Amino acid sequence: MASQKIQIFDTTLRDGEQVPGCKLNRDEKLVIARQLELLGVDVIEAGFPVSSPGDFGAVQAIAAQTREATVCGLSRAVENDIRVAAEALKLARYPRIHTGIGTSESHIRYKLCSTQAEVMARAVAAVKLAKSFVENVEFYAEDAGRTDNEFLARVCEAAIRAGATVLNIPDTTGYCLPAEYGAKIKYLAENVTGIHKVTLSTHCHNDLGMATANSIAGVINGARQIECTINGVGERAGNTALEEVVMVLRQHPYLQLDTHINTPLLAETSAMVAHLMSMPVQANKAVVGANAFSHSSGIHQDGVIKHRETYEIMNPRDVGMADSSIVLTARSGRAALAYRLQKIGYDFDRQSLNKAYASFLQLADRQKEVVDRDLHALVENEQLVNAN
Amino acid sequence: MASQKIQIFDTTLRDGEQVPGCKLNRDEKLVIARQLELLGVDVIEAGFPVSSPGDFGAVQAIAAQTREATVCGLSRAVENDIRVAAEALKLARYPRIHTGIGTSESHIRYKLCSTQAEVMARAVAAVKLAKSFVENVEFYAEDAGRTDNEFLARVCEAAIRAGATVLNIPDTTGYCLPAEYGAKIKYLAENVTGIHKVTLSTHCHNDLGMATANSIAGVINGARQIECTINGVGERAGNTALEEVVMVLRQHPYLQLDTHINTPLLAETSAMVAHLMSMPVQANKAVVGANAFSHSSGIHQDGVIKHRETYEIMNPRDVGMADSSIVLTARSGRAALAYRLQKIGYDFDRQSLNKAYASFLQLADRQKEVVDRDLHALVENEQLVNAN
Repeated sequence: MASQKIQIFDTTLRDGEQVPGCKLNRDEKLVIARQLELLGVDVIEAGFPVSSPGDFGAVQAIAAQTREATVCGLSRAVENDIRVAAEALKLARYPRIHTGIGTSESHIRYKLCSTQAEVMARAVAAVKLAKSFVENVEFYAEDAGRTDNEFLARVCEAAIRAGATVLNIPDTTGYCLPAEYGAKIKYLAENVTGIHKVTLSTHCHNDLGMATANSIAGVINGARQIECTINGVGERAGNTALEEVVMVLRQHPYLQLDTHINTPLLAETSAMVAHLMSMPVQANKAVVGANAFSHSSGIHQDGVIKHRETYEIMNPRDVGMADSSIVLTARSGRAALAYRLQKIGYDFDRQSLNKAYASFLQLADRQKEVVDRDLHALVENEQLVNAN
Repeated sequence: MASQKIQIFDTTLRDGEQVPGCKLNRDEKLVIARQLELLGVDVIEAGFPVSSPGDFGAVQAIAAQTREATVCGLSRAVENDIRVAAEALKLARYPRIHTGIGTSESHIRYKLCSTQAEVMARAVAAVKLAKSFVENVEFYAEDAGRTDNEFLARVCEAAIRAGATVLNIPDTTGYCLPAEYGAKIKYLAENVTGIHKVTLSTHCHNDLGMATANSIAGVINGARQIECTINGVGERAGNTALEEVVMVLRQHPYLQLDTHINTPLLAETSAMVAHLMSMPVQANKAVVGANAFSHSSGIHQDGVIKHRETYEIMNPRDVGMADSSIVLTARSGRAALAYRLQKIGYDFDRQSLNKAYASFLQLADRQKEVVDRDLHALVENEQLVNAN
């Protein structure tokens, strides 16, 4: 059986850009949008056109530039938002309007000061209006993660009848556990009339560190689109990280779910977004962190030298990272020291290696990292040069 | 029903310290160990004593200093490792030796060049030797995530018979999906003879971004200890982040699982480790990132101003972070602008606010963030000062 395709909906330029102090200008957004197309994303959410003239202009320019991907603009379930989004998307080859409203009790009561019936009516009106401008309309049920499943299903049915082609089920506050989020998607897939005509989409936030696992639970249970951002950027703890969900699916072929992403471009796309948004990626970030493929403990270094797969489940080249590195520290064992000594031209017998290792450990306890220059000095000082 | 307690096993100073360029000296380790005790962790893994004289000394000093927490030292299933670990732990009030061996086919064949029978024998001998020094012995089945469940169960049974009190089931390479890892723990809980006498422990790595979700799946399915590090530091993409699993359990009381962690100390502990290890935490890191409680989009700001819970599932004070902040950017709406203007002394009618908002958006499109100084200038320039 061939893999089913999961659509990647990148919202780096919309939800991802909602970060204090990280505003991108129009040219920067155009550069990122072009890179996202090269990377192979299916949908680029380019912005929230009504929010500011700058954002309107950026969406317009990305719509005009993009040739292969669908270009999407966000709107609330508000007439003017939708008209402005439609206007900004006029030049898009494949336009999509994304519209919606809060459906949880908390959002209906405290944010919207409204009722379920009124929210349902606004949802339908918004989708219908969007549909009068474009064929491809995505509906979001904000805070779906905390929305009662039965009401959520009724809202989804109404949105489908009004013309929605994609239903976005956001865990807006990043609260759900994977089993809970997966069950929600399964409930909708099994209980919403007309669901087979549309695409269910995940949109998870990372407040408790589970956005990736939640998104994967979503597609295992029937969703066919994942909304995500490069490096997981976004408001608060951010969105689902594109590079993580893509690699989870790539590394678990038995799930029979895959994306169109050209993974060797992940590292450079990550670096571009980190640089332009001034949002550094921490060294221990999954897939694209500087240390993601570095082995520093002796046990691990020994294993990787013998057979890479003992400690690595991904080939760093598959995500565009340089080869995995062996960094010598006080945690390194004899195997790693011998490997590195050999790489720089020394080939020791067991006795000399033991002597070199004792000196190496003394040095490594004093400094954080032992580099080749230190090794040359060590070999000379200890008068170990006999081999090679 | 009262919550069951999940033990928090912190390995910041052992697995967490296995990071290129981040070596901590003895004094720094002592400071972190003291902070971990204040934070309320149940077990401090202080180091890998045989690995270097520096590490031996650090474990010894932490063992002598620590009064409440169990202090643990790592060893391979190697006689000398275990003897040295026991020696380093001599002064500990509650010592634990952590010993083990690789059990997956990949580790047995390529790293150990051994057989299942031989690995089983080495596991038993290691636990017995450790048990001759201390009562509390934890056994790890390295690469358990990729180990066949049936063989893993047999190794666990043998370790229990040999005297192990804790069984650590590491997903060493960070490969498992939550459902898969949870099922593995459930299999062991249901099929290992004697399992009720010992504690099952999770130890997950974050290579694919799922360490937190995997650890939670583990405790939902019967594990009662989570191994983790502050900020998720560690080799490659790091370990499970302590602050994330603790807050997942705290925020989901219906799971009836909780820890002893004093959560208001999480933020300062995170900052201390980031500083001493020179491992900055990215702004969008869950729970302890600089932006974890910042709202910058207009829709969210409006919601939070009306009712905090619309977009926040945690109170920032509960993790020791300053109150959630409203940052004004081009994505901010009228509600946030009015809120901020009011905070700094201006109270506008609707018409003046609309005028101020138009000027604000022009300004915000030009600069990343609008601060109070800008607002005062804006109000003066536009001659809006009429209210208050």
